[in-house]
Amino acid sequence: MGLFSKDIATMDDLFVHTLRDIYYAEKQILKALPEMIEKATDPQLKQAFATHLGETKNQVTRVEQVFKLHGVEAKGVDCPAIDGILEEADEIAGEIDDKQVLNAALAAAAQAVEHYEIARYGTLVAWAKQLGRNDCASVLQKNLDEEKAADRKLTELAETRLNLKAAS
Amino acid sequence: MGLFSKDIATMDDLFVHTLRDIYYAEKQILKALPEMIEKATDPQLKQAFATHLGETKNQVTRVEQVFKLHGVEAKGVDCPAIDGILEEADEIAGEIDDKQVLNAALAAAAQAVEHYEIARYGTLVAWAKQLGRNDCASVLQKNLDEEKAADRKLTELAETRLNLKAAS
Repeated sequence: MGLFSKDIATMDDLFVHTLRDIYYAEKQILKALPEMIEKATDPQLKQAFATHLGETKNQVTRVEQVFKLHGVEAKGVDCPAIDGILEEADEIAGEIDDKQVLNAALAAAAQAVEHYEIARYGTLVAWAKQLGRNDCASVLQKNLDEEKAADRKLTELAETRLNLKAAS
Repeated sequence: MGLFSKDIATMDDLFVHTLRDIYYAEKQILKALPEMIEKATDPQLKQAFATHLGETKNQVTRVEQVFKLHGVEAKGVDCPAIDGILEEADEIAGEIDDKQVLNAALAAAAQAVEHYEIARYGTLVAWAKQLGRNDCASVLQKNLDEEKAADRKLTELAETRLNLKAAS
């Protein structure tokens, strides 16, 4: 932040700032996922998290590609939102001993993360299009589609296995 | 949190904890919305936020109704996720002078809030059903439906007005 002026003057600045926000968020998620994989005991949930770790690595690369296409430096900015969402995920996991209840809680925590990303990528795609950057929009759309698919997969696992086992 | 035992032993405990999380979140959103209404200068965005303030009040009442139906005390628990999402919304608004760019940023920030709520209510509805509490599920479903509609409304405003004005 500048000392005497506000940093975001234009829609383009807002787009770049939000891109840096999701870049930071994706990197925090990359750090958090291995622990979630370790904590999950349901084999299908473990596998879903492992698959998403691979997707997240690709998503980071795609965000870097968008920085390059747009001609700006690839760097992150603090994102209190993802920090809070991940902190909450960690806290709740620390409150649960029962493995089945923990699996249900982990899936729900991951869905809160997915929804944050769905909101941000949805916005970024719309802004990129508005700024005439359809090239950036189509790369960001891939991340948006993957996040939506990951969220649907977690809903399916929760409703067909995890919640059932947790409640029994 | 207990000193010697973990607080969430069962799926029912997890449901109640998450209900308390969204209760706290809704109350924080109630506090944040008047400032967002004040900052918004686009009349339709201002109106959408004002409408959502009214909806949020009803949502708090519905969550209290679920506490009652389920026979547990209506109280909140700290929710670092919503605190982080609202902190980020406040930070970004503080970085923007241009009114049109600010309107686009405010709508995006509100959509991050909506998506957090969509994730949590989606989970709560599924858990209530699993616990055989269809009465609670149907009340929570109303909040979920409202959050999804609020998110769609913001997408429509962003794509038909706000982004266009912000980029021009």
